[in-house]
Amino acid sequence: VPTALDGKDLESRCSCFMAPPVTPLEGLRSPDMKSRMELLIMETQAEVCRALAEVDGGASFIVDRWQREEGGGGISCVLQDGKVFEKAGVNVSVVHGFLSEESIRQMKSRGKSLKTKDGKLPFSAMGVSSVIHPKNPHVPTIHFNYRYFEIEEADGNKQWWFGGGTDLTPTYLNQEDIVHFHQTLKEACDQHSPTFYPKFKKWCDDYFFIKHRGESRGVGGIFFDDLDSPSKEELFKFVQSCAKAVVPCYVPIVEKHKNDSFTPEEKLWQQLRRGRYVEFNLVYDRGTKFGLATPGSRIESILMSLPLTARWEYMYTPPANSKEGEILKVLREPKDWVH
Amino acid sequence: VPTALDGKDLESRCSCFMAPPVTPLEGLRSPDMKSRMELLIMETQAEVCRALAEVDGGASFIVDRWQREEGGGGISCVLQDGKVFEKAGVNVSVVHGFLSEESIRQMKSRGKSLKTKDGKLPFSAMGVSSVIHPKNPHVPTIHFNYRYFEIEEADGNKQWWFGGGTDLTPTYLNQEDIVHFHQTLKEACDQHSPTFYPKFKKWCDDYFFIKHRGESRGVGGIFFDDLDSPSKEELFKFVQSCAKAVVPCYVPIVEKHKNDSFTPEEKLWQQLRRGRYVEFNLVYDRGTKFGLATPGSRIESILMSLPLTARWEYMYTPPANSKEGEILKVLREPKDWVH
Repeated sequence: VPTALDGKDLESRCSCFMAPPVTPLEGLRSPDMKSRMELLIMETQAEVCRALAEVDGGASFIVDRWQREEGGGGISCVLQDGKVFEKAGVNVSVVHGFLSEESIRQMKSRGKSLKTKDGKLPFSAMGVSSVIHPKNPHVPTIHFNYRYFEIEEADGNKQWWFGGGTDLTPTYLNQEDIVHFHQTLKEACDQHSPTFYPKFKKWCDDYFFIKHRGESRGVGGIFFDDLDSPSKEELFKFVQSCAKAVVPCYVPIVEKHKNDSFTPEEKLWQQLRRGRYVEFNLVYDRGTKFGLATPGSRIESILMSLPLTARWEYMYTPPANSKEGEILKVLREPKDWVH
Repeated sequence: VPTALDGKDLESRCSCFMAPPVTPLEGLRSPDMKSRMELLIMETQAEVCRALAEVDGGASFIVDRWQREEGGGGISCVLQDGKVFEKAGVNVSVVHGFLSEESIRQMKSRGKSLKTKDGKLPFSAMGVSSVIHPKNPHVPTIHFNYRYFEIEEADGNKQWWFGGGTDLTPTYLNQEDIVHFHQTLKEACDQHSPTFYPKFKKWCDDYFFIKHRGESRGVGGIFFDDLDSPSKEELFKFVQSCAKAVVPCYVPIVEKHKNDSFTPEEKLWQQLRRGRYVEFNLVYDRGTKFGLATPGSRIESILMSLPLTARWEYMYTPPANSKEGEILKVLREPKDWVH
């Protein structure tokens, strides 16, 4: 059973963060899940930003700490136009207030039963969310997001759940990289339940599907939402393992390819794939939709996920036997990468 | 009262089209609204494509005629990477079948009462739709769309309506151009009713609003939907006038600025504005949403509206007293351009 942190421990944990946490320190000493999750997402943000800045070598993260008028705030860290990364954003947000009607509709549509009071529903949400777009087309884009949600229903009943995932979007297929990525995630999952990886791998393939294109956004990873069993404690530990896996699943791939040479044609194909990334995020992504529908949300932090540049060509179809055709085939028929 | 066209008249009207109409010629001889509208949109497509190809001087339109498995088809004309135009698409579609559940939901949400039979609703929809993205940041982007819709309810009752509009999205503010654009549209409207221009100008400002940015997509024009009065005949004539106004409201602006010099900074600002264009189209646009929700729709024709390239920079804010700040101000507080 976790106990309250003493002031000194807490201060030392916070000293490595990118900025002071959204919640004032005295509020974070309680051992409740909201405090523990806020500390975890702040730690994850700092760990990932430091690892990426080191790999990049050319630029560092700018840090924006912002308040939300309706309650809460966040810390957005962005590295733009680095040596390795075109645009890398790692965002923490800790918000509370009342859910928008649109968000209630979205949650109900995925099967939640929510008892509102005069249509109002107080919520608390926190998470770390990141999209990293590299310059080199041989280095894949990564996205991850880990979040915790609490809702208080009209009768005082509290609902809570965890959500999250990590997924990879390469421009070109490199089997070895993808296996490393999935293997690292699988190991994080397997520490908690042998059912997690297969289940969340499939969930990821289903979720990151661009329906109107008949293609996945990338080569998957893991994704889950609305998780509330076996227990808050078990799930927190699982989320912690997933968050710890971000750097080891991705940074070695970046190191391996960051100096690969590439042609203008390869850069062009990357830009077209970035267009698909934009399509998924603006048309389907649940987090983006939730953000756009939440009054007072910080739009620049939500749309940080969009690439620096993207391209749409009418009827561009690569030949089936090209390297471009090779990745498309996998995006159209998701594969199992590890067993 | 319009009468059936004889075969020879019809053939001669069709001879200037970009491709044979979707409906076989014998089906177009009837004087009903579906035939007349199909001929109008084909004529509009041909007229606009010819005018744009002439202004461009460097490239011509490629013409794709496509069939929709579920019923109907279309003709997509695209000019890419011309001298003047980066990407110009003029698309005709004539489709029929059953409305998707998602489309029925969308229509009901804007106040339509629709009696379905086993959840099914047969529809016929046709329209011409176009987005023209020029290379030079001093030449604005234009969008127009004119469409006719018929729905047959469960009890045999037929609903029909017209929708459409023309609107301008400049990268930089040029008062004279915008006044010319609005004035030309106003004259087309005024031939039919003095109430049309003010009403549809406001509707346009309200419709092309990027809520999450608190900005309009552009400097407006006209927009209307669900129009079914005063009469089918009157409205067809109105839509005809609007369609005829596309070339005169836009082409003179293109001619005037197509050789303007511009700086890399101006090109960059154009790319950032293109990013906003993508945001509007993928998040809010009704036509795009209808297309994405309609099974068997031709995705490349729907997403033809997206620019060749776009850009998203974190927290880019131009100084208020710059030329970039000047257009932003107008996008945040739409103005009246003609009286």
